[in-house]
Amino acid sequence: MAKIRVLIVGGTGHTGSSVAVVALIRPASIEKPAVRALQEQGVEIREGDLEESEEDLVKALAEIDVVISCVGAPQQQCQIPLANAAKKAGVKRFVPCGFYNGGSSSRRHVAAGSEVVYNHIKRLWLPYTFIDVGWWYQLAFPRLPSGRIDYAVLNATNEIIGGGTVPSAITDLRNIGRYVAKIIADERTLNRMVFAYDTLMTQNQIYDLLEELSKEKIDRNYVPDEALYARGAVVRQSIQENPNDRHQLHLLYLVEYQLSWGVRGDNNPEYAKYLGYLLSKELYPDFEPTSFRDYLESVINGSAKHPYAS
Amino acid sequence: MAKIRVLIVGGTGHTGSSVAVVALIRPASIEKPAVRALQEQGVEIREGDLEESEEDLVKALAEIDVVISCVGAPQQQCQIPLANAAKKAGVKRFVPCGFYNGGSSSRRHVAAGSEVVYNHIKRLWLPYTFIDVGWWYQLAFPRLPSGRIDYAVLNATNEIIGGGTVPSAITDLRNIGRYVAKIIADERTLNRMVFAYDTLMTQNQIYDLLEELSKEKIDRNYVPDEALYARGAVVRQSIQENPNDRHQLHLLYLVEYQLSWGVRGDNNPEYAKYLGYLLSKELYPDFEPTSFRDYLESVINGSAKHPYAS
Repeated sequence: MAKIRVLIVGGTGHTGSSVAVVALIRPASIEKPAVRALQEQGVEIREGDLEESEEDLVKALAEIDVVISCVGAPQQQCQIPLANAAKKAGVKRFVPCGFYNGGSSSRRHVAAGSEVVYNHIKRLWLPYTFIDVGWWYQLAFPRLPSGRIDYAVLNATNEIIGGGTVPSAITDLRNIGRYVAKIIADERTLNRMVFAYDTLMTQNQIYDLLEELSKEKIDRNYVPDEALYARGAVVRQSIQENPNDRHQLHLLYLVEYQLSWGVRGDNNPEYAKYLGYLLSKELYPDFEPTSFRDYLESVINGSAKHPYAS
Repeated sequence: MAKIRVLIVGGTGHTGSSVAVVALIRPASIEKPAVRALQEQGVEIREGDLEESEEDLVKALAEIDVVISCVGAPQQQCQIPLANAAKKAGVKRFVPCGFYNGGSSSRRHVAAGSEVVYNHIKRLWLPYTFIDVGWWYQLAFPRLPSGRIDYAVLNATNEIIGGGTVPSAITDLRNIGRYVAKIIADERTLNRMVFAYDTLMTQNQIYDLLEELSKEKIDRNYVPDEALYARGAVVRQSIQENPNDRHQLHLLYLVEYQLSWGVRGDNNPEYAKYLGYLLSKELYPDFEPTSFRDYLESVINGSAKHPYAS
């Protein structure tokens, strides 16, 4: 098979850093350490900006087979000129920013703008693959009372949604690049949605496993479904009053994600399949995911990394 | 195979009359001639109303395997309580009002409310099949200068969009029931979208064929794409000023359909396939559609029916 030329947009972010070949970098960012690190790994850097002219974007996409967009949730709309340019440049597969857990259901809530982008891609008749992933291993575990894993914990509220019995798909952040590399080279995934995940666990199972491995008794802060809906209503009200309050918008993401995976149970391969997704487990039965037990052991022994560490 | 019990909602309309087994009829309509005609054909009639309580709707759906909704474009939202009840009643397949040509693309424009219904169905995890169809044979031909086929012509403007060269899928209205009967008994179509059509033709090909069969020279009223976009803008403006003007809403449907099949070329099996549809031609290669030539001959010899005749 001829080598596939892949262009990454937003390749210096947290999802993007694990998949990169050619990176489109804004002139203003070209001197950033993260960009230099990409170059040192042999990644070709192309200067370009999603806000420049379509003509320049088409040039930046010359001879690119696959475009993978890893722009942030607030930059969803910037993908529209990128998709237009990709269509003109003859790109063979466009992977918009997705990588949501729970697939299209949580996407509708967490990043409504992305639905507009997905529909725009379909209007263009631009070949695509939409990739969603399970919740990250790196975000799926609570803090320990001893504090010894605080270095790796993002959210220390130790909230368990409902009774903690809803199964939810989880994925090692470090595997996303491996999945994406397989998916973009696979004809079966062209013009399809793919849901990639490593394993399926309930919150209770996760807490039990971490207790077993750490020999510590973990605080379990149960949050009834109703309390979560009420929290969502308060945040929405606050956003209605101050639509640009980034802190509240972030809280809305969190609560919508919790409702999606913790209450509705959207973040589930069976539901993804019902929605029309192909599943990584069925596409790549030989893929060996990192085990969550191994990952938690690395957290306890101090060798894990905070997911937003650079 | 056990007999599949199908409930039709809106079965007295023009799409509905060709597919019927059990029909849900509003008490106010129970004495209508169309309902009596259904009964005479052996169709079981159940009294029910989409606006009644969910509990009553669940009862009306008892022991129904498949619900087919044929409500009109303005009644899309009424399908939400119906879908809720279908989920509770354990319905095995829900077919919402679809039957649009050009699939989801024109659906977004012609009946935006239906997208809300489709998303609601997916949120419920209710088994579904979404069916779209080609433009009707019965609407796809122009009038003849002699006037002898005016009895069967719905739109006598003889407009040809652009250069008349965009291929568009067409379907004999009388075949829709045959397609639906196959689709709802087919496991392959569960939780999928299906595009059913009989043949693919450009407007020029249709005019040429009718000229050949009638031996008349037909007026061809070419409408440039730009004129159609401009017409759409005028209609939208008018609706913005009077949101309930039914005449303007109808004009908007017409212009959006023309843009969809005549300009963008959405009403095309290749595009439907890209969007994720299964195609009737691939599912049922042995299905013999009525030929459009035969249909036009019946129009010329006076034996066709106006599509909205009861």
